[in-house]
Amino acid sequence: MDIEQFRKAGYQAIDRICDYFYSLESKPVVPSVEPGYLSKLVPRHAPEEGEDFGKIADDFRDLILPGLTPWQHPSFFAYFPTACTYESILGDLYASSVANPGFNASWSASPACTELEVIVMDWAAKLFGLSPDFYNSSEVGGGVIQTTASDSCLVAVVAARSRYQRTHPDVKMEELVIYTTTQTHALGKKAGLILGLQVKSLEVDSTDEFGLRGDSLRTALKEDIAAGLKPFIFIATVGTTSSGAIDNLKEIGPILQDFPDVWLHIDAAWAGVAMSCPEYRESLGLNEINQYATSYCTNFHKWGLVNFDCSGLWIRDRKLLTDALDVTPLYLRTKEADAGTVIDYRNWQLSLGRRFRSLKVWFVLRSYGVSGFQKYIRDCIEKNKVFTKLVAKSEAFEIVTEPALSLTVFRVVPNQKSTTKPSLESLNSLNASFFSIVSARKDLFVTQTSLNGMNCVRFVVGSARTTDEHVHKAFYVLESEAKKALASWSQTPREITQ
Amino acid sequence: MDIEQFRKAGYQAIDRICDYFYSLESKPVVPSVEPGYLSKLVPRHAPEEGEDFGKIADDFRDLILPGLTPWQHPSFFAYFPTACTYESILGDLYASSVANPGFNASWSASPACTELEVIVMDWAAKLFGLSPDFYNSSEVGGGVIQTTASDSCLVAVVAARSRYQRTHPDVKMEELVIYTTTQTHALGKKAGLILGLQVKSLEVDSTDEFGLRGDSLRTALKEDIAAGLKPFIFIATVGTTSSGAIDNLKEIGPILQDFPDVWLHIDAAWAGVAMSCPEYRESLGLNEINQYATSYCTNFHKWGLVNFDCSGLWIRDRKLLTDALDVTPLYLRTKEADAGTVIDYRNWQLSLGRRFRSLKVWFVLRSYGVSGFQKYIRDCIEKNKVFTKLVAKSEAFEIVTEPALSLTVFRVVPNQKSTTKPSLESLNSLNASFFSIVSARKDLFVTQTSLNGMNCVRFVVGSARTTDEHVHKAFYVLESEAKKALASWSQTPREITQ
Repeated sequence: MDIEQFRKAGYQAIDRICDYFYSLESKPVVPSVEPGYLSKLVPRHAPEEGEDFGKIADDFRDLILPGLTPWQHPSFFAYFPTACTYESILGDLYASSVANPGFNASWSASPACTELEVIVMDWAAKLFGLSPDFYNSSEVGGGVIQTTASDSCLVAVVAARSRYQRTHPDVKMEELVIYTTTQTHALGKKAGLILGLQVKSLEVDSTDEFGLRGDSLRTALKEDIAAGLKPFIFIATVGTTSSGAIDNLKEIGPILQDFPDVWLHIDAAWAGVAMSCPEYRESLGLNEINQYATSYCTNFHKWGLVNFDCSGLWIRDRKLLTDALDVTPLYLRTKEADAGTVIDYRNWQLSLGRRFRSLKVWFVLRSYGVSGFQKYIRDCIEKNKVFTKLVAKSEAFEIVTEPALSLTVFRVVPNQKSTTKPSLESLNSLNASFFSIVSARKDLFVTQTSLNGMNCVRFVVGSARTTDEHVHKAFYVLESEAKKALASWSQTPREITQ
Repeated sequence: MDIEQFRKAGYQAIDRICDYFYSLESKPVVPSVEPGYLSKLVPRHAPEEGEDFGKIADDFRDLILPGLTPWQHPSFFAYFPTACTYESILGDLYASSVANPGFNASWSASPACTELEVIVMDWAAKLFGLSPDFYNSSEVGGGVIQTTASDSCLVAVVAARSRYQRTHPDVKMEELVIYTTTQTHALGKKAGLILGLQVKSLEVDSTDEFGLRGDSLRTALKEDIAAGLKPFIFIATVGTTSSGAIDNLKEIGPILQDFPDVWLHIDAAWAGVAMSCPEYRESLGLNEINQYATSYCTNFHKWGLVNFDCSGLWIRDRKLLTDALDVTPLYLRTKEADAGTVIDYRNWQLSLGRRFRSLKVWFVLRSYGVSGFQKYIRDCIEKNKVFTKLVAKSEAFEIVTEPALSLTVFRVVPNQKSTTKPSLESLNSLNASFFSIVSARKDLFVTQTSLNGMNCVRFVVGSARTTDEHVHKAFYVLESEAKKALASWSQTPREITQ
């Protein structure tokens, strides 16, 4: 392909992407393909001679697109959203055209990649109200883009373990413990698997809306330390995946002051971007994050308008990362890097190479502006309020936990005026049937969860294309399916608890 | 930005990318910016109101582009190449427009992402001559795209440690040792830092062209095991960064049969793609890789025509990855996944989410075809031969190691007819001056290395835009600078060794 062929194929790609977005709403939100569909349509080996790009582009449209789940569909209410903005697509396009591995071993390898990331991570820190301690301009703390919240968390756990080992050189790896709660994302357990370390999941209670209380943490720390274990990090969550729960940072923060060996990593992968709106900062614990967090993560690529992948990690002391991850041989070290005045991001992450992801953040923050970013977040929350109100009024549903920002967790319940109350098992079976019917539909996409053994359904607003009308339509579909599930369930013999 | 604004900005982006490639050769290969340049040109915080995208795109062209190192420049002979093909740019563009996090927790989350990766990794395995044991279609082994060779290696080390711990449940982490050589990429040392494990760098000899011999490995294994240490992985390299060295797999493979606890990971990050050409397979050790490797990595994004990031990792037994990395709760496990017939790549990697990178591999392999891929590799090697011949004939230079594929390592030497021979220190000082002059130039880009204490310069061909003329030009610039360095050096008083 030469430059002019690229121009032609590039225009075509832009046009087809426009077609895709124009037609998005008319397409199903769940693809209709079966496992293994593609292997029946594609040869088993690469062609010997090159093919015409027109044919390849057609195959993308005809074979691949129908097998992709359109997470940007206005009726996608599953998982958490994945951002997909035009500005980000353009950012990825420009960044891809100047491909370089983005490391900075020597200044000349890719200056602007590093410099722009240093700048936009400060922009983002200001947008979210983070303390100046976390700014790159502080030359002590700083922000870096990682691939995912799992990656950000793993980097924090590695740095925390490294710090603990430096201050306790005789510690045995077998004694080290990563603290999470039962509501922490699987990233906590995975960090333990990767590093070969114990993970402890602290229990949380539904009466605390599934957020960890300070007393539970203090008790666990005291017991484990007395038993010879060495808890060295607590992964707190602001906005859990299941229900948007927030660990009680007001209680946890001061307690951890008594345990200075325990690093506080805060995973706000989804909810963190809502701190762009000042009215949510207090309830999301911004003051406590600013006061107590050793490291903090939120993902642009979930609810933050920047395409996957783009996970923001901020650290109070950059030296904690470079002490853990810097493999620069002595003869390559420079005074500037050692002083922390020049950032070499390869020593802030697991790999050497890195993509030019700050470009899409820059494009998005400039094109939306702070006010546009806030408007998008507020719109999503408002649309979820519309949904919450409908669910609250419905006889078929019960809201399970306090709705969190753009997330509502609910379940199907039988007529609440009835004097007999079904068992948890029976209600779970009802909700399993309901979810099974709903997930067979192609016109809306929701996911399920289990909260302390209770089967529930999650509904999250995130697509910029979702309107009140889509929310209403989704609600009526859900309610109508719930009524069918209830009718069938009420005819099933079952155990009744009083 | 709405769809029509995106169309306009998209066309503009395509046109500007064409302009960029048309003008590439006329631009310097080393940017002329100073550290901190960008912070003087960009505000300290995001704008309150959104800005016009035309202004943003102009700023990319005017502020960012001049600060980026054009790794695709025809006179870029530094590091190893980073691929940047039009097909990949289009692949990134399409993939970005359908952004989703690419995991497959439930089938419906992103079917085609997974299915295409399963297919193209088999295409690539066939292209490189890998044994069918490594094909996804074997349903035992398989291939997966990771971000970088560091990431691929870390995944292998984690899986190897996990396997060792399962078969030796009482092993202490402090006893575990990762084996590398002094020529292994920093990824080995970094895996040790991340996992908190010991790393041993085995010495290699210049008489073995810096490849590890079997006897050295056997001796080290025996001594360490006798001392109570537990070596559990050897990271072998096919094509080291410094000099393209290849560890002696013919000797190493059979020895490791006697040490079945030691996982053999082969890092062929740069050189592996040359196995697309059958004539290089024997010298690169393909037979031994196929016979002995537990895992094998080569990067598409270096010399393999697919844009960064795209690191191919193949494994002989996929269960070794999922046993180490699967955090699926019991109630989400399926018979199909447990049987290994359905692939869920999140359990083959460190993070949960993943980008749709197989698309750009598919575009490249189809558009180039096997023959086009081979032609590109052979052309680079031919161009390096042109350079090697010029260096070999020059009185100013000496070739330090046998040229490897598209890499030549050489150094400046004084007139070789002279009976007095300078000391290593004096020669190093000569080469340091030479490199310092060369690296101040903006019209070509090479990097230096140190081989067993010897300062050398590396010259690598990788840009598809490099012609014989660029190679000649680069050589004459280098030779002319070498002569100047020699002239200045010959006037410096120095110690002479006989």
